[in-house]
Amino acid sequence: DFMAAFNEIKPALGAAEEDLDALTRNGLIHYGAGFQQLITNGHSLIHQLKTSQRTDSLSVLLEGPPGTGKTALAAHIAQFSEFPFVKVISTTHMVGYGEISKCNLIRKVFDDAYKSPFSVIVLDDLERIIEYVHLGPRFSNPLLQTLLTLVRAPPPKGKKLLILATTSQLDVLESMDLAAQFNATITVPQLSKTAGDVEKVLEHMAVRYSSDTEAAGVLQALPLRIPIKTLQLVVEMAQAVGEQDGQAGLTEDAVRQALRTCGCDAER
Amino acid sequence: DFMAAFNEIKPALGAAEEDLDALTRNGLIHYGAGFQQLITNGHSLIHQLKTSQRTDSLSVLLEGPPGTGKTALAAHIAQFSEFPFVKVISTTHMVGYGEISKCNLIRKVFDDAYKSPFSVIVLDDLERIIEYVHLGPRFSNPLLQTLLTLVRAPPPKGKKLLILATTSQLDVLESMDLAAQFNATITVPQLSKTAGDVEKVLEHMAVRYSSDTEAAGVLQALPLRIPIKTLQLVVEMAQAVGEQDGQAGLTEDAVRQALRTCGCDAER
Amino acid sequence: DFMAAFNEIKPALGAAEEDLDALTRNGLIHYGAGFQQLITNGHSLIHQLKTSQRTDSLSVLLEGPPGTGKTALAAHIAQFSEFPFVKVISTTHMVGYGEISKCNLIRKVFDDAYKSPFSVIVLDDLERIIEYVHLGPRFSNPLLQTLLTLVRAPPPKGKKLLILATTSQLDVLESMDLAAQFNATITVPQLSKTAGDVEKVLEHMAVRYSSDTEAAGVLQALPLRIPIKTLQLVVEMAQAVGEQDGQAGLTEDAVRQALRTCGCDAER
Amino acid sequence: DFMAAFNEIKPALGAAEEDLDALTRNGLIHYGAGFQQLITNGHSLIHQLKTSQRTDSLSVLLEGPPGTGKTALAAHIAQFSEFPFVKVISTTHMVGYGEISKCNLIRKVFDDAYKSPFSVIVLDDLERIIEYVHLGPRFSNPLLQTLLTLVRAPPPKGKKLLILATTSQLDVLESMDLAAQFNATITVPQLSKTAGDVEKVLEHMAVRYSSDTEAAGVLQALPLRIPIKTLQLVVEMAQAVGEQDGQAGLTEDAVRQALRTCGCDAER
Amino acid sequence: DFMAAFNEIKPALGAAEEDLDALTRNGLIHYGAGFQQLITNGHSLIHQLKTSQRTDSLSVLLEGPPGTGKTALAAHIAQFSEFPFVKVISTTHMVGYGEISKCNLIRKVFDDAYKSPFSVIVLDDLERIIEYVHLGPRFSNPLLQTLLTLVRAPPPKGKKLLILATTSQLDVLESMDLAAQFNATITVPQLSKTAGDVEKVLEHMAVRYSSDTEAAGVLQALPLRIPIKTLQLVVEMAQAVGEQDGQAGLTEDAVRQALRTCGCDAER
Amino acid sequence: DFMAAFNEIKPALGAAEEDLDALTRNGLIHYGAGFQQLITNGHSLIHQLKTSQRTDSLSVLLEGPPGTGKTALAAHIAQFSEFPFVKVISTTHMVGYGEISKCNLIRKVFDDAYKSPFSVIVLDDLERIIEYVHLGPRFSNPLLQTLLTLVRAPPPKGKKLLILATTSQLDVLESMDLAAQFNATITVPQLSKTAGDVEKVLEHMAVRYSSDTEAAGVLQALPLRIPIKTLQLVVEMAQAVGEQDGQAGLTEDAVRQALRTCGCDAER
Ligand SMILES: Nc1ncnc2c1ncn2[C@@H]1O[C@H](COP(=O)(O)OP(=O)(O)OP(=O)(O)O)[C@@H](O)[C@H]1O
Ligand SMILES: Nc1ncnc2c1ncn2[C@@H]1O[C@H](COP(=O)(O)OP(=O)(O)OP(=O)(O)O)[C@@H](O)[C@H]1O
Ligand SMILES: Nc1ncnc2c1ncn2[C@@H]1O[C@H](COP(=O)(O)OP(=O)(O)OP(=O)(O)O)[C@@H](O)[C@H]1O
Ligand SMILES: Nc1ncnc2c1ncn2[C@@H]1O[C@H](COP(=O)(O)OP(=O)(O)OP(=O)(O)O)[C@@H](O)[C@H]1O
Ligand SMILES: Nc1ncnc2c1ncn2[C@@H]1O[C@H](COP(=O)(O)OP(=O)(O)OP(=O)(O)O)[C@@H](O)[C@H]1O
Ligand SMILES: Nc1ncnc2c1ncn2[C@@H]1O[C@H](COP(=O)(O)OP(=O)(O)OP(=O)(O)O)[C@@H](O)[C@H]1O
Ligand SMILES: [Mg+2]
Ligand SMILES: [Mg+2]
Ligand SMILES: [Mg+2]
Ligand SMILES: [Mg+2]
Ligand SMILES: [Mg+2]
Ligand SMILES: [Mg+2]
Repeated sequence: DFMAAFNEIKPALGAAEEDLDALTRNGLIHYGAGFQQLITNGHSLIHQLKTSQRTDSLSVLLEGPPGTGKTALAAHIAQFSEFPFVKVISTTHMVGYGEISKCNLIRKVFDDAYKSPFSVIVLDDLERIIEYVHLGPRFSNPLLQTLLTLVRAPPPKGKKLLILATTSQLDVLESMDLAAQFNATITVPQLSKTAGDVEKVLEHMAVRYSSDTEAAGVLQALPLRIPIKTLQLVVEMAQAVGEQDGQAGLTEDAVRQALRTCGCDAER
Repeated sequence: DFMAAFNEIKPALGAAEEDLDALTRNGLIHYGAGFQQLITNGHSLIHQLKTSQRTDSLSVLLEGPPGTGKTALAAHIAQFSEFPFVKVISTTHMVGYGEISKCNLIRKVFDDAYKSPFSVIVLDDLERIIEYVHLGPRFSNPLLQTLLTLVRAPPPKGKKLLILATTSQLDVLESMDLAAQFNATITVPQLSKTAGDVEKVLEHMAVRYSSDTEAAGVLQALPLRIPIKTLQLVVEMAQAVGEQDGQAGLTEDAVRQALRTCGCDAER
Repeated sequence: DFMAAFNEIKPALGAAEEDLDALTRNGLIHYGAGFQQLITNGHSLIHQLKTSQRTDSLSVLLEGPPGTGKTALAAHIAQFSEFPFVKVISTTHMVGYGEISKCNLIRKVFDDAYKSPFSVIVLDDLERIIEYVHLGPRFSNPLLQTLLTLVRAPPPKGKKLLILATTSQLDVLESMDLAAQFNATITVPQLSKTAGDVEKVLEHMAVRYSSDTEAAGVLQALPLRIPIKTLQLVVEMAQAVGEQDGQAGLTEDAVRQALRTCGCDAER
Repeated sequence: DFMAAFNEIKPALGAAEEDLDALTRNGLIHYGAGFQQLITNGHSLIHQLKTSQRTDSLSVLLEGPPGTGKTALAAHIAQFSEFPFVKVISTTHMVGYGEISKCNLIRKVFDDAYKSPFSVIVLDDLERIIEYVHLGPRFSNPLLQTLLTLVRAPPPKGKKLLILATTSQLDVLESMDLAAQFNATITVPQLSKTAGDVEKVLEHMAVRYSSDTEAAGVLQALPLRIPIKTLQLVVEMAQAVGEQDGQAGLTEDAVRQALRTCGCDAER
Repeated sequence: DFMAAFNEIKPALGAAEEDLDALTRNGLIHYGAGFQQLITNGHSLIHQLKTSQRTDSLSVLLEGPPGTGKTALAAHIAQFSEFPFVKVISTTHMVGYGEISKCNLIRKVFDDAYKSPFSVIVLDDLERIIEYVHLGPRFSNPLLQTLLTLVRAPPPKGKKLLILATTSQLDVLESMDLAAQFNATITVPQLSKTAGDVEKVLEHMAVRYSSDTEAAGVLQALPLRIPIKTLQLVVEMAQAVGEQDGQAGLTEDAVRQALRTCGCDAER
Repeated sequence: DFMAAFNEIKPALGAAEEDLDALTRNGLIHYGAGFQQLITNGHSLIHQLKTSQRTDSLSVLLEGPPGTGKTALAAHIAQFSEFPFVKVISTTHMVGYGEISKCNLIRKVFDDAYKSPFSVIVLDDLERIIEYVHLGPRFSNPLLQTLLTLVRAPPPKGKKLLILATTSQLDVLESMDLAAQFNATITVPQLSKTAGDVEKVLEHMAVRYSSDTEAAGVLQALPLRIPIKTLQLVVEMAQAVGEQDGQAGLTEDAVRQALRTCGCDAER
């Protein structure tokens, strides 16, 4: 059956480990119950795809505010699948390409995936791939149509395909009918200070404070909800400000200044 | 007469069986009276085209919400016709093509069909073929004009042509005058829980429940109206969630979670 | 004089009889006084063009709802003229052409017509030729400008040209100043039940009813105004539905179902 | 001086008589005081250009409702000037050309004109030349910019250039700043029934009436203001209708029907 | 120092005298205090550029209603500078060029100017150069971006560049941020009747009147504010009208008619 | 570690000193506390990038009104970093390039930077680079998408990249989601008269006044807030005006006139 075939073929093809490595360079912090739920959800979808008799492709959309870890999570699920074919599609390697070249590049990735019995395709930052900009709004219709078609196209008989996509502008994808093409949608949230997520991440980063009062002040200064990527940047920026001033550890003032510089002072 | 010619020519040409096979891979479930009416309707149109002295082409639009089985139904009618020439036009095999290439590809299919005494052309997902997107809105006018012309163009003298098209955005086609070009429009509805459609499909899928209470709960959890494709996906997703949790059969909780993940929790 | 020349030249060139034949394949039904007036009007314009000393071209726009017989009427007038050069311009043979190719094709037809002493050019479905679509709205400005110019361009000295155009969207042509370029506009109406048009057409089609009650019911079911093409389609569709049910003749029920399938149940 | 040079050079170059001939084929009818004023105005501008020491180019815009005789008047003034270089720019000979080809063609005419000591360029139907259409609105900006520049460009030292342009959409040209580039604007009006213009034209056309009552009725049926071109067409159309009915002369009924067919029944 | 270098280099390069000659063909009339102020202003900017240690380029925008003498004034200042490199950029010699060709032509002029120690570039009619039209509005963004960049680009070390631009649509340039790129803006006004400007210009033109009453009437007929170019045209046109009527000198009637023909009767 | 590597590599590559030299030609004036804070901020970000274990790129946006010294400040920070690779991207050297050429040029700079262990890229005037214009608005989406991608693309493993960008239209960048891609945003303000900034700059410029009263008057005439570049231009312009009038030093009148000519009289 499928599972037997799965275990046999894998070594022969080899996964695109490097791509995933770059995206997961900084590792995941297991910060709480919400995080655990995200992981379980992802694993369950992989189980479904592997075992189903009638579903030969699943498309999953990871959505949430900027910096909440959508890309890292997609990379984690892709790695967890242990599928022999894994490919990341992002605009980083398509700068300066025309619309049609991009369409064909994307199509090529799908054509390649169709040749492997089990494949994962990661579509990172969908709104960037379709060249969306709110002013106008403008976007590339050829790229959008390519995605609208490929996200729901069935793979050839006997092949299984997992599509993982990320976006921080779900409403945009909805207005283009692109979100509706996905079989599943998972929301990745910001860290919550009240749920203790923030403290767990600070702990995991091994932050040193110049005093206990400052430690309390730092936590006080941080907003109620903050994306994990922003928190990490703010801490580092505040540390640099402190070091410039000759401070031994993190201070509330430095954190407040860093939040301002990051444009994170007024909660948006 | 026509019917005699029809019976003679068929073996000589051979239908594009593979295309239809892919579209009807999972078979049709005979779920109730509404379904029967759709089938009868389709068969009657084929009868009209075969026997008429003055009508040499008929164009039929199958419309309804996403996932209600329009494509499967079109494939079924095409197969039922036993016409020697059957061709499916969909965007799956046109990804990355320019507008003009697509126009010519479509035109080519019609030119080929015109050579056979009896032909069926399936135009799957009209809004996708014309590259429509609500944001803007944008679409390809060359492709639209091509369809506006070909859907009502008469085949050469002595040829008969059936055009079957599908859409889940009838209002869009109406705003473009494309719907009006069709001779007939058939609406494909969602499954109705009250009419017993949902129960019949679950039965046909041979779903096992972890208990009788859960069986009742599952039915309770499902919305009043649900597309057949969505129902099948939700059941499978819930089964995978259950299996992850070590559950023997389907539970209400797993179904509710699957409905949420599919974006089907709040009836749209 | 002109009439003498006219009678001499005709045999030498030969009219494009095939094109007209296709358009008049199903013949005209002489359904009443309104129809007679249309015919007289057309003949009078031909007389004017043939005999005038100062008018060397006349352009006539046939407008009216879809399916009322505009194209058939244009073809009839063209045939009646007995002009040696007759050419039909429609999009059927231009599918997939670019705007500029279409412009040049149209221009070529006019250039050819200018070589014959008496010519008719039929421009079928003007809104389709200019690639108009209400959504936007969009259209081809090169094609529009080509028509705006050619419809009022004088033929070379000594040549006579009749331009017959059809449209079911007069308001669109007016908004583009295209309607205003024509010397004459003739409105082709729907059949009127009260004027007895519908009964005359049904009679001419030799429709059989399953009973006298059904005959009355059929007439009752038909709308007050219906395009001649729609009436013919509905009758045929209802006949097929009946035959499927094993009915000997036309029934009211079958007609009502056919009207629904044709989208003609609610008067638009 | 200039006038001496003018008289010498003329025979050497020869005017483009044929172009003007086509435009003035049907001759001018001297219908009244208003017409005389238009002629005087035109002649005075030619006098100014011929004699001025500092003005080396004059651009004149003839504007008015469709069919009032703007083109015929421009052709008349051009002929009256007796300038050795006369060229008409209209879209009739540019059908199917691209924007840039048209720009270069226009530029070429100006370059040629600059080589003659005295030149006239007629720009017929400016809104057509710039491919204007109200729906949108759309127009060719390259062509507009070409005209905006050339209409006010000074000819080379020692050359004199008269630019005569016509339009029936002055407001459009004003919205594009094109009207403002002209040195002078002359309005060409419709014929006025009250001023006796209409009767003079009918007289000049030698119209025969079937009776004196009909003669009065015809005048009664005609609108208060009518373009000269429309009046001529209506009369001819009514004559043909009458002849079809076997009428000896013009009747009020035939005129009313012709006005309707011409879309002239309700004063716009 | 700079001034020494300036005096040495000039003869070696030679200014583009012809271009300026064409623009100043008709000479400047010293019509009053306002005019004197404009001249002083221009001279002061040249002094600043010549003597400054830190400013190596100055960009000046001459703006005002059509026909007020902006182009003539720019040409005058350019000539007054006695800079060895002077170049006029206007659309007259770019008719039919594409956007990119125009951009490169403009860039070429700047590149050439950068090779001379002292240069003047005149950008005549900025709104025309960027192909602006109010309807839309439309304009060429490549040309706009070219100007936005070049107007504020610093010349190479040791070079001095004066940019003189003209426009009669300051508000347009402001809406495109182009006006803001200029270091200085000078407004060129219409002639004022109350300030005696009009009388001075008429005097300078040596106008003859048919009588003293007419002389007074002419002044009476002229509007309170009139562009100098319009005044000169109106006088000449009125003279021609008079001569046609056999009048010895200028009359009020002729002036009123000329104002009407010029579209100057109602003050805009 | 990184810092050791940093000190070793620098001499080998050599910074693009010339580019920075041009931008810092006129030097920085240390005008007050606000200025000092800007400098400290910039230095701290460089410290963070140099020492961080997990951050390999930082992107900083310098925003503020026109002429406040953003470009000069970016050049100063780039120089201060002492990174071996420094490159300035501005439109000055891209005039007349097409969108795609510009994209590839920008991409090339990033590719080059990725080869150096420590790099600085200055993106001067972001709104100009993306060809933005408020009227429309219009901009180049290919260029915008290029920046949206590159500003947040991670450099290759082991490389450090500092991106410094300037803009005077922060709101525009925000409406395009471009501002949000930057890790830090620094606001560069106008000089404040009340904070003594203006006086310090005048002092530093060694301005001479024609009298003490005039000195006071000059300060009085200047607006409360003025960009440093504008202040320097106004002073120079006023000096030239004075010299034309034979004035020894700066006067209030000359300053007021210069403010008017610079369009700085009414505070915007
Ligand atoms: N539990 C976690 N989940 C996600 N990311 C984590 C977690 N713990 C640490 N990280 C780190 O946080 C960062 C999340 O960044 P990532 O780029 O994945 O966010 P994103 O949502 O894709 O951002 P963007 O909206 O900008 O694309 C990564 O560096 C990742 O290694
Ligand atoms: N009675 C039925 N009618 C239609 N489809 C059925 C029926 N029974 C089972 N099916 C299955 O349900 C699925 C219907 O999917 P299909 O793609 O045809 O829907 P659709 O309306 O075309 O969807 P979409 O709007 O996404 O194009 C198919 O897998 C088909 O095999
Ligand atoms: N008296 C009649 N006038 C017109 N058509 C008639 C008449 N009698 C029969 N017919 C038939 O009716 C049909 C009219 O169709 P036709 O295509 O000419 O209509 P149309 O108005 O051009 O439609 P559309 O708006 O779709 O272009 C033709 O098949 C024609 O043969
Ligand atoms: N006095 C007249 N003035 C103008 N045209 C006259 C006069 N007398 C007769 N005509 C004839 O009237 C017709 C006027 O048509 P013409 O094409 O010049 O009008 P137009 O205003 O240019 O029309 P359009 O707006 O359609 O371009 C010509 O055939 C011309 O010969
Ligand atoms: N004092 C003056 N200032 C400016 N122009 C003058 C003056 N005296 C005479 N002239 C003449 O007036 C005319 C002004 O025309 P010019 O083309 O310079 O105006 P403009 O403002 O550039 O017009 P436009 O807005 O149409 O470009 C020129 O012929 C010039 O010789
Ligand atoms: N403290 C300072 N900060 C910034 N610029 C200074 C300072 N002191 C003097 N300057 C000078 O002021 C000028 C500032 O101009 P710069 O082009 O950097 O401003 P900008 O904000 O980039 O302007 P724009 O908005 O037009 O791009 C430079 O010439 C610079 O040498
Ligand atoms: Mg991401
Ligand atoms: Mg479908
Ligand atoms: Mg038709
Ligand atoms: Mg005309
Ligand atoms: Mg000018
Ligand atoms: Mg700057």
